[in-house]
Amino acid sequence: MSDLIEPRLSKGFRDLFAEEALARQWLVDTVRGVYEGYGYAPLETPAVEYRDVLTGEAGQEARETMFTVSNPEAEPLGLRFDLTVPLARVVAQYPNLPRPFRRYQVAQLWRADKPGPGRFREFAQFDIDAVGVPSEVADTEIIAAMCDCLIALEVGDFRVRFSSRMVLNRLLDYAGIPHDMATDVFRVLDKLDKAGPEKVRLELTTGYTDASGDPIRGVGLASAQVDAIDRFLGIRGIARGEVLSELGRLFADVPGAAEDIASLDLISRHLYALGYGDEVVAVDLSIARGLAYYTGPVFETVLVDAPQYGSVFSGGRYDGLVARYLGEQVPAVGASLGIDRLLAALVDLGRVPLRRSTAKVLVATMDEALMSEYLDLAFTLRRAGVATELYLGGPARLGKQVKYADRLGIPIVLIYGGNEHERQVVTVKDMAPGRSLARTIDDRATWREERPGQREVPRGELVAGVRQLLAEMGDNGA
Amino acid sequence: MSDLIEPRLSKGFRDLFAEEALARQWLVDTVRGVYEGYGYAPLETPAVEYRDVLTGEAGQEARETMFTVSNPEAEPLGLRFDLTVPLARVVAQYPNLPRPFRRYQVAQLWRADKPGPGRFREFAQFDIDAVGVPSEVADTEIIAAMCDCLIALEVGDFRVRFSSRMVLNRLLDYAGIPHDMATDVFRVLDKLDKAGPEKVRLELTTGYTDASGDPIRGVGLASAQVDAIDRFLGIRGIARGEVLSELGRLFADVPGAAEDIASLDLISRHLYALGYGDEVVAVDLSIARGLAYYTGPVFETVLVDAPQYGSVFSGGRYDGLVARYLGEQVPAVGASLGIDRLLAALVDLGRVPLRRSTAKVLVATMDEALMSEYLDLAFTLRRAGVATELYLGGPARLGKQVKYADRLGIPIVLIYGGNEHERQVVTVKDMAPGRSLARTIDDRATWREERPGQREVPRGELVAGVRQLLAEMGDNGA
Repeated sequence: MSDLIEPRLSKGFRDLFAEEALARQWLVDTVRGVYEGYGYAPLETPAVEYRDVLTGEAGQEARETMFTVSNPEAEPLGLRFDLTVPLARVVAQYPNLPRPFRRYQVAQLWRADKPGPGRFREFAQFDIDAVGVPSEVADTEIIAAMCDCLIALEVGDFRVRFSSRMVLNRLLDYAGIPHDMATDVFRVLDKLDKAGPEKVRLELTTGYTDASGDPIRGVGLASAQVDAIDRFLGIRGIARGEVLSELGRLFADVPGAAEDIASLDLISRHLYALGYGDEVVAVDLSIARGLAYYTGPVFETVLVDAPQYGSVFSGGRYDGLVARYLGEQVPAVGASLGIDRLLAALVDLGRVPLRRSTAKVLVATMDEALMSEYLDLAFTLRRAGVATELYLGGPARLGKQVKYADRLGIPIVLIYGGNEHERQVVTVKDMAPGRSLARTIDDRATWREERPGQREVPRGELVAGVRQLLAEMGDNGA
Repeated sequence: MSDLIEPRLSKGFRDLFAEEALARQWLVDTVRGVYEGYGYAPLETPAVEYRDVLTGEAGQEARETMFTVSNPEAEPLGLRFDLTVPLARVVAQYPNLPRPFRRYQVAQLWRADKPGPGRFREFAQFDIDAVGVPSEVADTEIIAAMCDCLIALEVGDFRVRFSSRMVLNRLLDYAGIPHDMATDVFRVLDKLDKAGPEKVRLELTTGYTDASGDPIRGVGLASAQVDAIDRFLGIRGIARGEVLSELGRLFADVPGAAEDIASLDLISRHLYALGYGDEVVAVDLSIARGLAYYTGPVFETVLVDAPQYGSVFSGGRYDGLVARYLGEQVPAVGASLGIDRLLAALVDLGRVPLRRSTAKVLVATMDEALMSEYLDLAFTLRRAGVATELYLGGPARLGKQVKYADRLGIPIVLIYGGNEHERQVVTVKDMAPGRSLARTIDDRATWREERPGQREVPRGELVAGVRQLLAEMGDNGA
């Protein structure tokens, strides 16, 4: 026995069983339906790419959290950590792609972050991007698609919040902050939601010592500069138009600001015209988005009833990413849906249909001599479009099989023993009424007498009988 | 410019664009539908696992072709190369799983094989397995599910061929071959289709020198032993029952053979009863399946019109795989569909619907002043369920956009210029009639006069007008 291998996973990895995998499938199918309705088409790129292609000039973080891969040729490879970089690589690699190039991609990603509750090292993301698209119409379309996905998923109230990297650059001018401090300043502003305004102010100026005693280095801004940022962040309101008007007044003397604000206002007006009002899309000037590659509008999304999950759907315009490979700017805009995070939030909120089985019916197999009959019953239902599981662990006691169906949430069990065979009927058992009681019953004879919720159906009318019971259960048979 | 990173992929990896990715999606959705109709539920396991868990006692080959992975903790990890091993790990790791445990899994796999035409290092497989199922009913169900998938995919004529590892063991007894030579003998027999009987005979006996001058080592069987194998392989026929009867006569004196043949016959009879006749499922005694872990029936599948693709759908019973982790036998049976291989064959045969776009309609954007109108047209159609692309590269010349629609195979282009705006009509252009001619036309005015296949629709009746044109095209609007 010393040769046994311990079945285990590396930390940060997990298995998804039926309930979660089916819920994820439902989410992916729903989002795919929305994107295809917008005329987006799928792209699939490999999980494994060259390390230099993946990291480019990306920050230290991307390099440190990448899983490295080796092939027999010992090439420097890695697992992708996002879908935007591979998209940029594709755009650069195939010069004859149609432009605009509009694609969705849903795939697994890997980041060797510190694992924690709800944080995994393999996770799924659903991206939509349009490349070669310079206009606000494209930005509008991405925001609208984000809203339509969340509406189709019935996530409840949500708020897509948007701002612009351009407007943040104007803020630097307004506050008299050199542009080479932009990355540091925006990285700190990105913590506003989590750290709160006081800590952000400290980090922007002198720094501080956090709860665990670690020193947080300050960015070194002067107090007047942070005051200017505060005035900017103080512009909050429900109505997008009002926020942008007030911003226009604040930045009245900042060169170029009027144009950038007008660009945001155009997106806002397009969205109003399409019916995406202030209740679903807000201008929120506190949004920075950490990623250095954004060059224009940036978006993020919170679920009103589950704000603790942070942004579940984020993106923005990144006109410079392809330049890493081509040396030339290519306008692009897109958004990423964090599938695992959104799913966790929806499960928390009870807004996901959870199923442990795909079957509506379990055909119990009690009698070896009747095995071919059980097969026939199962296939008759399957061919009629009723998802049916044939109990493959049999022949076995009925009680055991009823427990199995109960555990998997299969709503109907078919019982066909010698007695039924003789009379050419099938006993159709509705699992709903006595689900907990069924656990204690192991003997079929007792069970038949005591249990309501079961009926006999002539064998020739099996499909009709099962369909009727499903209809009575409120199952539309899908 | 010297800092530019070359956009490229490691050998054996590829990108899948809309046409292939949509075809793959269609294939996966279809197979998933069949499996869910059988009541199977999805399982998702990580791409990255511990190397010892992945390889176990697997042959040298698995270890040599594995992509190795490292995390920051420098653990010995690798990318999965099949879905059966992770399933066995899951069954061993979670003792409280329901039994039978029936799951499907569709996922990417990685093997660092020598790349070649149609051979990639990342590929997709769709597996179905039932664990904890000792009976022929389970074997029957897997074979039936394989057939139902191929029928649902409309692959044309196919043949699932099955045999049994048990029967092959009886062959060793019949031919007087020691059981410790089994792996070598079956490995060579597995080459019958590719290498032909003569080379197989040579390799089973003395060995030979192949066309490139490399020596192929012989297994060392005596001539009489190979004659016995030949008599076994000589049993060929269309009717499963006849093949098995003849085998029974050949093995009349081999202890235990009758029982093993009866087991195959039971599967065959179940299949006959369910309507899977000799035209779709055959007993083929030449099948060995290379994998060492099979313990019972083995299956493979050829497309009658594309035999050069080899087996596209293979599997069998493997009652010993979980023992690697648990030290205990767990009966299991399953099959793997090679998605990439099947798709390549179906594309070759012209049996896959190929689409370059998901959109039915392209809304052309010619006039900056009308951008909000274009958005409105696109969203009106989308909300009516008509997949619609809004041309995001605009405003641009109409000719360019018509070419773009032509290239993507979008069947309808909506044209809405100042003239249409004034009269509140939309020009609906059918791309089908003059697809090649359209490439030369860049000027809208000329084009309008010359082109048939376009009509004006009042703006308020846009949805009805587009739906009618789609119906005329034979598009059911799905």
